[in-house]
This record gives sequence, structure tokens and C-alpha cells, in this order.
Amino acid sequence: MPRPDAYAVEPWVLREPAGPRHDDLAETETTFALSNGCLGIRGVLDEGEPVAQAGTYLAGLHELRTMVYTEERAGEPEATQTLVNTIDGALVRLFLDGHALDVREGELTGHERVLDMRAGTLRRELRWRSPGGEVVDVTSERLVSFRHRTAAAVRYAVRAVDRAVDVVLQSALVANEQQPLRPSHLNTKDLLRHPLEPLEHRTSGDRLTLLHRTRRTGFVLGAAAEHEIDAPRDVEVHSESEEDAARFTVAVRLEPGEELVLVKYLGYAWSEHRALPAVRDEVAAAVTTARAAGWDGLVADQRAILDEFWEHADVEVDGDPELQQAVRFALWHLLQATDRAEGRAVAGKALTGTGYEGHSFWDTEMFVLHVMTALRPHVSRDALRWRYATLPKARARAAELDLRGAAFPWRSIAGEECSGYWPAGTAAFHVNAAVAEAVIRYVDTTEDEEFSRTVGLELLVETARLWASLGHTTRDGAFHIYGVTGPDEYSAIGDDNVYTNLMAQRNLRGAAHWAGRFPDEAAGLGVDDDERRQWLAAADAMFVPYDTDLGVHPQSAGFTDQPVWDFDGMDADSYPLQSGFPYFQLYRKQVVKQADLVLAMFARGDAFTAEQKARNVDYYERITVRDSSLSACVQAVLAAEVGHLDLAHDYVAESALADVRDADHDSGDGLHLAALAGVWIALVAGFGGLRQVDGRLSFRPALPDGLSRLAFRFGFHGRRMRVTVRHDGATYEVLDGEPLAIRHEDEEIEVAAGAPVRRPLTPRPSRPAPTQPKTRRPQRRSRPPST
Amino acid sequence: MPRPDAYAVEPWVLREPAGPRHDDLAETETTFALSNGCLGIRGVLDEGEPVAQAGTYLAGLHELRTMVYTEERAGEPEATQTLVNTIDGALVRLFLDGHALDVREGELTGHERVLDMRAGTLRRELRWRSPGGEVVDVTSERLVSFRHRTAAAVRYAVRAVDRAVDVVLQSALVANEQQPLRPSHLNTKDLLRHPLEPLEHRTSGDRLTLLHRTRRTGFVLGAAAEHEIDAPRDVEVHSESEEDAARFTVAVRLEPGEELVLVKYLGYAWSEHRALPAVRDEVAAAVTTARAAGWDGLVADQRAILDEFWEHADVEVDGDPELQQAVRFALWHLLQATDRAEGRAVAGKALTGTGYEGHSFWDTEMFVLHVMTALRPHVSRDALRWRYATLPKARARAAELDLRGAAFPWRSIAGEECSGYWPAGTAAFHVNAAVAEAVIRYVDTTEDEEFSRTVGLELLVETARLWASLGHTTRDGAFHIYGVTGPDEYSAIGDDNVYTNLMAQRNLRGAAHWAGRFPDEAAGLGVDDDERRQWLAAADAMFVPYDTDLGVHPQSAGFTDQPVWDFDGMDADSYPLQSGFPYFQLYRKQVVKQADLVLAMFARGDAFTAEQKARNVDYYERITVRDSSLSACVQAVLAAEVGHLDLAHDYVAESALADVRDADHDSGDGLHLAALAGVWIALVAGFGGLRQVDGRLSFRPALPDGLSRLAFRFGFHGRRMRVTVRHDGATYEVLDGEPLAIRHEDEEIEVAAGAPVRRPLTPRPSRPAPTQPKTRRPQRRSRPPST
Repeated sequence: MPRPDAYAVEPWVLREPAGPRHDDLAETETTFALSNGCLGIRGVLDEGEPVAQAGTYLAGLHELRTMVYTEERAGEPEATQTLVNTIDGALVRLFLDGHALDVREGELTGHERVLDMRAGTLRRELRWRSPGGEVVDVTSERLVSFRHRTAAAVRYAVRAVDRAVDVVLQSALVANEQQPLRPSHLNTKDLLRHPLEPLEHRTSGDRLTLLHRTRRTGFVLGAAAEHEIDAPRDVEVHSESEEDAARFTVAVRLEPGEELVLVKYLGYAWSEHRALPAVRDEVAAAVTTARAAGWDGLVADQRAILDEFWEHADVEVDGDPELQQAVRFALWHLLQATDRAEGRAVAGKALTGTGYEGHSFWDTEMFVLHVMTALRPHVSRDALRWRYATLPKARARAAELDLRGAAFPWRSIAGEECSGYWPAGTAAFHVNAAVAEAVIRYVDTTEDEEFSRTVGLELLVETARLWASLGHTTRDGAFHIYGVTGPDEYSAIGDDNVYTNLMAQRNLRGAAHWAGRFPDEAAGLGVDDDERRQWLAAADAMFVPYDTDLGVHPQSAGFTDQPVWDFDGMDADSYPLQSGFPYFQLYRKQVVKQADLVLAMFARGDAFTAEQKARNVDYYERITVRDSSLSACVQAVLAAEVGHLDLAHDYVAESALADVRDADHDSGDGLHLAALAGVWIALVAGFGGLRQVDGRLSFRPALPDGLSRLAFRFGFHGRRMRVTVRHDGATYEVLDGEPLAIRHEDEEIEVAAGAPVRRPLTPRPSRPAPTQPKTRRPQRRSRPPST
Repeated sequence: MPRPDAYAVEPWVLREPAGPRHDDLAETETTFALSNGCLGIRGVLDEGEPVAQAGTYLAGLHELRTMVYTEERAGEPEATQTLVNTIDGALVRLFLDGHALDVREGELTGHERVLDMRAGTLRRELRWRSPGGEVVDVTSERLVSFRHRTAAAVRYAVRAVDRAVDVVLQSALVANEQQPLRPSHLNTKDLLRHPLEPLEHRTSGDRLTLLHRTRRTGFVLGAAAEHEIDAPRDVEVHSESEEDAARFTVAVRLEPGEELVLVKYLGYAWSEHRALPAVRDEVAAAVTTARAAGWDGLVADQRAILDEFWEHADVEVDGDPELQQAVRFALWHLLQATDRAEGRAVAGKALTGTGYEGHSFWDTEMFVLHVMTALRPHVSRDALRWRYATLPKARARAAELDLRGAAFPWRSIAGEECSGYWPAGTAAFHVNAAVAEAVIRYVDTTEDEEFSRTVGLELLVETARLWASLGHTTRDGAFHIYGVTGPDEYSAIGDDNVYTNLMAQRNLRGAAHWAGRFPDEAAGLGVDDDERRQWLAAADAMFVPYDTDLGVHPQSAGFTDQPVWDFDGMDADSYPLQSGFPYFQLYRKQVVKQADLVLAMFARGDAFTAEQKARNVDYYERITVRDSSLSACVQAVLAAEVGHLDLAHDYVAESALADVRDADHDSGDGLHLAALAGVWIALVAGFGGLRQVDGRLSFRPALPDGLSRLAFRFGFHGRRMRVTVRHDGATYEVLDGEPLAIRHEDEEIEVAAGAPVRRPLTPRPSRPAPTQPKTRRPQRRSRPPST
């Protein structure tokens, strides 16, 4: 776990002033990963070693891995899709008189890496004395282009310091890099050690090209690198290639103060349909595009896109500089994860690591798209179009499960179900409600009529059909959904999960409503009045269990009758509980891994009274252990809503620092993308009190003691908005666009461009702070940290 | 599936008059398997081919197979134990002038196999004309000795028919025979292809010896064969051996009418503790023992033991000859499975095949030991001592699961949990109640004080502790057991499974009662008054769900609110449902694989009123599909009890014919031992109406139209009893021993030796016959079949 001071606290950059930290290499490879949603490169050192896990990922490019079950069961997927490390193009090795630059050898006097979230690059500076005594200053800068989705570039400069040195730079492309193996992969060692079959390798002048193929999925992929050299005198160059590697080598003698600069342009291409000749040409086009833009052009494009992004998306937090940095870090990675995904799944770890095998889950829709719809809606549209493209697979899966409509996978890269543990996979049908929720939110935010009539309607209809066939009506007329798993992964296969039922209810009503808005298109999907009525009847009769004795909602039917987990018998090392306790025990006891009923109170706040929310928060705080990174942000929102503002601040910070502090000891496998999205949600919905219901915005802001100001921007119905919250009031602005009617607390107000509206804040009711299980209290943050 | 007439219908033998049936080789290898519970040999042809699956099994001898999980979970076993095919000693190959006897070649004029259940041998007769035109009559007979647990023998005779022939007999020992691979084994091909590591091979005169070792479990095992020859003239003999094979060859010329007889004595030994020298000596001792007994001696011993067995155990059924044969076949295999197991687990498939990897399950205690306690109680005592020997492992497992007491494995050979699917494995805690039930039944039947004070008490105490820690008390004071799986494998992880709760209740009370009877021994186990009171309080407060609306018991809480499976949408090919439908759907709907609530009504009949039983039978008949062979026999008992006698007859026959008709298409993997035990239970408890509660016997007999007489024998409190049921009355006899008070219907009667008591039968109440799901009605048997 990185030390708290591993990174400097600065508002716009993530700076590692004294690195590389050898114990935390994996973590920095993740936090410094560059991506545009299409191409992702982990933050590995230029010279490739030391390394925890190298990774160059291409969106959607995966291999199949056969899953062997301990017992055969119908309906289980035969194989999982697994994200493949493709061709590493970032490598630049430096040799001084035969000594390879290696931070573990020689003498490193200064090593700094800076992720610049306004420039969109990763910079590195170091001074190194080789074992032979030569001293050089090295400056490298790397980017993955937002402008050109298959392009990346590295600028590598080396300067002789105090005497002349013979410098050799070797720029490489490498395939089938050795990767660490996890125990679960031991049965498919060969697949993962050598995932790529070589097809072709070539050099042409300063251009290197490698072309490979995945064995089972048949993707053809390729990478090319071109090189520009700026040197004080003529240089020796040499290009060579073999099956899994290609190298461009440049050698020159530098006098003190002289510099050799190598710019490496990278282009990638891949396809599961097209054959080698087509992909070869695409690779050439990609690298040519990058070189044509030139290093300065790529850097300028990058900054322009980021200027525009921050103009629409920035969040300012005063009073907690660490949180200020962390929220920008979160937004930066959200942008990186999604911007050019364009029809590919956005994975839980984005393109920053192979955790969860590169799969996408429900939290992309419920957390990531929630944020991106407000900040960069085309990203949500594209992500939902990916779901739409997988509808045939989801329909087939529903049929395989003896259900109607569409059953989207719990985890997948290409749309097929990839979970091999159905109680926490297939049974978690709420993923379908998350898709519907994201559709409704996107259309409510953008008024994108074309999308709603086509993609949106069909997604709502097919998910509504799923719920209608999944639930059933009991003798008393109530509509129930039995045997499903909600968000909390320490419960499974329960009846009437409140979150699931309420989300299904909205899904059913949404489908019925949209089918009414678009009758022709609905008829084209086979929806008739009977079916619409059936959806509405199911929604109206939807059963929501309630424990009248305790005055709280059980997460699922009977939950509050379960024995409570022995929290007092645990210590800090007992967590995460799933590592030490079997699901058998976790499932049948009151212990919550991540917000479930509490998430229901956020996503379907309209279904609970204020008093119920307060009591439920109090009840579930006592039994929620946050072994999932998805929990703290949701707890923050509800804590803020019911008045526990300092606790909400603690939770926001926990969520925000999840990766830069590596709280779960697994950031090295990739980012916790949804938790990063949760930072925005927690700030905006928690302290901003923003709710969006039926296409209308309402606010109920409040700040914790530790923050003095919060300002956030977002888009709504074509407008750009900014809300600023201080302890003494909130200010609402339309930055551009038409006037907008919103609700502040219980008041309707209209806000017009150039006419900010300021309103005082009603204090939250005072309630005793809830307690958490022993050792699970979040780290206190109620006072501003000294800076 | 064998044709209905594959076997002749005869009371004491299973005769295959026209074989071998090439499509059903696997099934006949199972039905003709010979075993004594210690050594098992599948009914493979003498010459080894054609073969479906050869198998020579030694009780307890297993290898480990690593289980790879699709997702890692705490508490899951890392490896499963798998029964190993050891050294095949039954092989005798015949060559006529270089032509190997092979039933697929030459001309077979007559081939008959006869399993003789009074002689205890498998005989085979055939006449074969070789492709070269020589004709011989071959008679072979094979036995696995009940008298000498590690001994077997083959007598092989070949006679020249119409002209002189050059005969060569080759008797072999073979290790690491090639075995068919199931898909689930593909990840451990090598292990299962070559499970045995050769240690030593030798010949000495007519003795062959092979010694091997299992790689991971480290068992040393060996087999030896010795040979006697009876020939009309001098013969050529030759012995040879190599790592995985040894051969004894005899050659002679036979004139027409002359016969060559080879008797092959086999001895086995194995140990997981002792080293090669010890095992080598044990092998020599075993084969010497067999040869010393001689063929005639072995045959005589076999018959004597069987005479004694049938004297104590025979069941006579008049009116249904097929059922008469089948019940003896069942008893024969029960004897074979258990008689000399002596401290090893009795597997679900006995030693007749590798189905379920040779594991033992709960049904050994609930079905097999139920019968054997009545017929051959030392077998039950030994089997329970096996459980007792595994108590340390069961205690460790309980601790691993965060429970107290002992948690016996769902499936195992040596005591460690081997289930890799916890919802239908670990969660099925009722296995522990089955152990307790078998303990109580054994002691109630035998009054074995020594056993009850030691082994029995400790088993009851440790299982009671498990229940006490597994359940919890809710606000209303009721004791609940949540999140467990009952017998029905189409439901899982339910709350308050009625069967489990009622069996746990008896277990808790039994432990408290026995701890009171043996206070010193109980104190030695740490039981104090507080703990006893806690057990009794839990038992008294045990919650049993009941659906007052429907007037039936839900199998588990909420079961009767679940949607009913779409039985009308199924056809005969849809079954077994588990092959085509995911557990996700099966678990959350009303569909019952095997008797669960109905089993509760048998095992805990005292907890239900007669009216409840009738209603429950009617309810559950409609939703029970009998995809498990454990179901029909239990349904038979309850159908008989509530008055559906013809239906009960149908179910008895279904259970009885499960293997000889290969109803589930898997008898080739081994017998359905518990279903065979169920035949006895269904006849005796169903038509005999025998119940045994608190050490007392009661009877409520009734026969279906299709049977004219049922007579069964059993032991009780040192007596040998016989009950004969006819339509017009029942006769109770004490065959030897003291007088006994029993209950006939509602009357107390006393029966003394030599003074049979006859009583008329009160007709069962007439009720409309219940229905079964479409295509799941058992085959009708209400009229006696013509013979």
C-alpha cells in the first residue's frame, strides 16, 4: 500500500516525487496508466523493468479461457472471455556504454513521474549514473491520444551531463511478454503465457510492424512504430524484427550538455472480422496518422480536448486538498476509460489492468454512466449502444435460462455470460435494471429522441420482458421476484430483494411509458396493449418487504430475521470477510458487503419516506463492512441525505483515495473505476443533494464541516450548469443555454444564463451518528487536514 | 437401456440368457459386479474385451484430484478424492491356435451369464467357434469371497467339442488399464490414465505379483495370483512380469471331450501407512489364504454365509415375480456392498463403479444402514465406526465453517469434504442428522450398550453441537435453521427445511437424552447441564413452517409461495431437468427432484397428523419428478401409508428395477445402492407398515392389488422376526428369541417364538389417487404381470 505521502497533493497533477517505489510498482502502473477507452497502456517504466505487470490493451480484444467446473451444471458458460495483453509499444531502452538503464543498478539521483491531468500526458524525469560512471538526464513523456483513438506516442530525451557518453536507444515492439500467473489461471498457463500467434513481422526504414492473432477468438491485431530522431550529429540506426519482437536502434556520442531526442509514434489496429491484409493496412494508417500529427500536434490536441472536458466537468473542492486532487484523478480516469470506447464494453478496471479478466459489470451503467451522462453524454450513448449490439446474445441467454426478453451478462467483454459462479453471477439480474436505468437517465438528461425511439426503447422493452417473466404473482395478488441476488455480494439467491424489485418496477413502468410514446416502434417489437398492461400491473403490485417490528426494510425478504454476523469476533485482519469465511455463512447472516438497501434508497429515493431512510441508514451502517469499493460512495450519499455530513465526508474520501492509497491491496490489477465514479456521485448527489426524477432536477445541498466550498459542473437538456455550495448557501448558474426550472429544497426556482440564483441552506436534522462494525469505521476526516 | 426381457425372471438368480448385449456392457458390468465391501470387481468378461469400463476397487483406496474453481471461494476443498481402478486380476484370455477368444469374432453359439444369489458366484457358459473353425465350450465361475475379505477366485474351464484343439490360457494381472474419460476429468487426464506408480513386479512358479503406489495419497497396494491346473496331460507353463502386467500362460492340446481347468486365486493388500515390504507380505498372505481354502472351500464358505444371510434377510413377494427377483437382487448387492467394508466408507455406488468418484453420501446412513441394521447389524456398527474415525476431520471442517461440533462431509471417501459445489454440498447439513439417525436406529435395534456409550454418544453430541451453532433464535423465540439445503436437490440454501429441522430436533433430543444416560462419558466430552438444556430448548423451539392457507407443509419456508414449474411445457425428454435447466430456475420454483418433505413424513412421522400426511402427499406428488433414484421408494412408503396402495406398488417396482432396467441410463457407472435399499424400505415400511419409534415396533400392513403375499424377516433386540402379510391379515412370528410386545394397527400384542399371531387388516381410507407431473406417472403395476 502506498504511503499516504507517496504522491504530492497538488490540484491538477498526480506527482510521484521520489520513485519508483519498488513495493508499489503494480499500483503506480495502474494509476499512471494512459488510455482513451480504446487503447490502454499501463504506467510501466520506459525501459520495461522492473515491472509488476506490463499491459497494452485494446478495447474488446479478448481470448477465450475454458472454465472447468467441479460439477457439471446446465446453463453455465463453457468459457470466459479474458482481456489479452497485446503488443507492448511503449518500450524504450537506454544503454550507456553497454550498461542498460535500470533503476535498480547504478545510482539514481532524482526520479519523478507526473501524471498531468490537464496536459493529458505522463512525464518522467530522472538523473542516472551508470555503473560505469556516465551521468545522464532522461526526460520522457508519453501519451495515448484522445484525438486519434488508435495512436500513442513517446518522446524520450537523454542528455549527457558532465562528460561525453556513448548512448544507444532501443525502441521496441514486444508481443507475448511474460506475465505473472494467478492460481486460477494455472489450468490455462500456455494460453496466458503465449496468447498471441505470430502472423507477420517486418521493418521498413524506421517503421517496425508486428502482426499477431488470438488463437480461439481469431482476432487479428497489429502494432507499428515509427521514429523521429533529433540529435546533435549523425546517428547510427538499425531496424530488425522477429516473430514476437521488433527493434529500432539508434546510437550516437553525446558531448556534455548535448541531447538525443527520440519520438516514437505508435499505431494499433485489430479486428475479429477482417483478415491480415486489411489489418496490416489499418496498422500502417494508424501509425502514419500519428506521425503526420507530430509530437507537438498530438500534445496540442490532447490539451484542447482536456480543456473542453474540464470546462464541462470540473469539480472544485475547497478545504480538503487531497480530495480536490482525488476527484480530478477520478474524472481523469473516467474520461480515459470511456472517451473512445465507441461500441466496446467499459470494463470495471477500464483498460488499466487485467483484474476481473477485463470484464464489464453492472456498475458501468449504475456508476460510470451515471456520471458520464452528466459530463460527456456521447460516452453513455456509445456504451448503451454496446449493450444494444449484444441484445441477440442477451435474448439467447434469457431463452437458455427459460426466461423472456433479454438477460444481459453479469460479466463480459463481448456480451456472452462469463460468470462461472451463478449465485453471484447469473442470479444477479439487477444488471438488466442498471441498463434500463442508464437508458432512462441518458434520455432524461439529453432528450435524445432518436436514441430513445430506437436503441432505448428496445432495451427497455426487452428488460421489462425479462422482469415480467422472472417474477410471479402470489395468491394475495402481490408480484414477487424470487431467487435472485442483489448488489450485496454477501447475500445471494434471496426473495424480493428491495433494490432489485424497485429497479424492476421502474424498468417496467419505463418500458410501458415509452411504448406508449412510440407506439409504432413498440408494435414493431411485438408490444401490444396487453403486454403494456401486464408490465404496469406487475409494477403496481411489486412487493417491497418491510419489517414492521423494527421499522426498517429488510434488504431481501427475511433478511432482518437472520442472525447478525459476529462483528465483535472480527479484527481488522478478518476483512475482507470473503477471504476467510465461506459464502455459506456470509449469505445466511446479516452482514452487508456493499450498499444494497442503501443503494435502493438512492436510486429509488421516491419509494422511501425521510424517516424510513434515516432508520434504514442507521440499521445498515451497523452491519455494512464495505468489503467492496462500491459501497462507501453510496453510503456517503445517504449519510449526507439523512444528516450525517461528517460521516459522508469520511466516505467520500475513502472512495476517492481507494486507488491512490491502494486501500484494497488490489489496485495493481487495475482501477476501481466505479468507485471513482462514486466520488463524483457522492459529492454531487451527497453534498450537492442533486436528484433527477422524471427529467427534473432538484437540489438539497449541505456541506460537512471539513469542506468550505464545493462547485460542480454538468450538462442538462443542452445547457451547461454550475452549482456552488458553501455553508451559507448554494448558487445555481446556467453557464450557457436556455433558462431552467429546478427545485432547491422545497422551492421551485428558475435559473437563467448570466443570472445566478443563490439560496440559503436549511440545516439537516440532527441525529446521533450511526456506528459501524468494529474496525470498520471509516477514517475520520471531519476537520480539514493541514496542508 | 436393457430390454425388459434382457434378464430372465427367476427368483434366485439374475440370468442373462443371450449375451453379451454389446450396447449394455456397462450395465451388465455393474449388475454382475462381485464384491464383499472390501474388494470389488466389475462384471467384465473373462477375456477383458469388449469392455465398457473395467474396474477392480479396494475399499478406501483413492487418489486426489485437484479441483479448479471458476472463482476462488473460502471454505472450498482444494481436491477431491477419487476411487482408483487398481490391479485387474480377473483376466483369463483363451487362444485357440492363435485366435484369441473374442465374442465379436468367430461364431458364438450360446452365451449365458448367471449371477447366483444363493451360491454367491457369477457363472458364464459359452460355445465358441474360432475363425479357424475350432469349437470349444467354456465355463467360467468367479467369486469374491465373503469369508476372506481380500480374496477372490476364478475357475475357468475349456473343453474341446468336435476336434482336437491347441489351447493356450493366459491368466494376467494388469495395472493402469485404459479407462474412458469423462469431460470433467479432462484437466487431470494423466492422473486418471496412469493412476498407479509401479513399485515392483515378480513371478515365482505359478505366482504373479504386482506392487504399485498411488502418487499423491501414497497408498501402497499389491495383488498376487496363484494358479492350479487340471489337464488331461502335461502342459507347458510360463510366467513373466513387467511393470504394469504379469502373465501366467498354460498351453495344452485337448482332444474332443477333454477339458482344461484353470483355477486362479487372487489376493490383494493395500495400506496408506505401511511400506512396501509389509504390503508385499500381506499380498502373499492373502493369495496363500485363498489357495489354502481351495476352490471348493471358497465356494462352500460362500454358500454357508449366504444361507445364513437369507435366513435372516429374505423377503418373499408373491404376485409380482419380477419384483421378487428384484428385491433379492437388491439385498444381494446390499450385502456385497457392506459385509466386509469394516471401517471404510460405503459408497453410493458401492464398489461397482466410479460414479460419484466412489464417494459416500448421506443416503448410506439414511437408506443403506436403515436396512442393514435390521438385517445384519454389525455392518451398520462398522459403517458408523467409519464415521467415528473421521470425527477429527469433521470437527476441523466445522471449525473451518465457523461452526461448533462436527460437520461431516457431503461426499467423501476418507472423511474430507469433496464437494466442489457448496449449495448442494456443504450446505446440505442434513448428512449429520442422517449419521445421528443411524446411530439411534442401530442402538434402538441392537441395544448395543457399549457402542452407544462410546461411539454413539460422541457422534450424537458432536452433531447436536453442530445444530445448536447452525441455528439461531429469532425475536419470537423460535429456533430456526437458515440457509441450508435439504434432500431435494432442486432446491437449495433455503430457510427452515422441514426435514432438516425435524431431523435436527431428534438429533438434539437424542444427544440430550444419551448424555443423561451416560453422564460420565458426556462430561468427558465437555457436555454440561447448560449445554444439554440448550439442546433441549432448541429442539422444543424448533420452527416447522406450515402453510395454513393450503393446509400443507412447505418443504422449506416460503416454498409453497414459489411459482410452480411449468410441467405442462415439459415432455419426457425434458427429464432429468437438471440436464437442461439451470439451478437458478429449479431452485426458485416448486419442483421437487426427490422426496424431501415426504421423507420427513417417513423419518419423523410422529410430527405429522394423518390428515396432514394425506394432504402433503397429494400436494407433493403433483410437483415431484423423481429425477433422483432416491425418491420412488420414499414416495412408496407414504403412498402406502395414506392409502394409495397401487401407486405404492408402482413406486416399489420403479425403485427395484432402477438398475436392471437402467432407468436413469447411468447404471453403468455403478449401482444405485440407496435405491436398492429403498426397495426393502418401501416393502417393509410401506406394505408392512413397520415403524420403529423409541425402540418399539409397530405395524400397519396393507397390500396392493398386485401382490398376494409379502413376507419379510429382520432382527430386533436379539430376536429373529418374520412378518407375513396377506390381503386378509398379517402374521407376526418370533423365529427365535424372547417374546416381544409390538403394536399392530392400534392394538398392543405380544408375540412369542412358536406362537405366530395373526390379525386382520383394517382397510386404508379411500382417497382419490394423486396425480404426477406430465410424463412422470410411474409405470402402472396394479395388476400382476403375466409370467
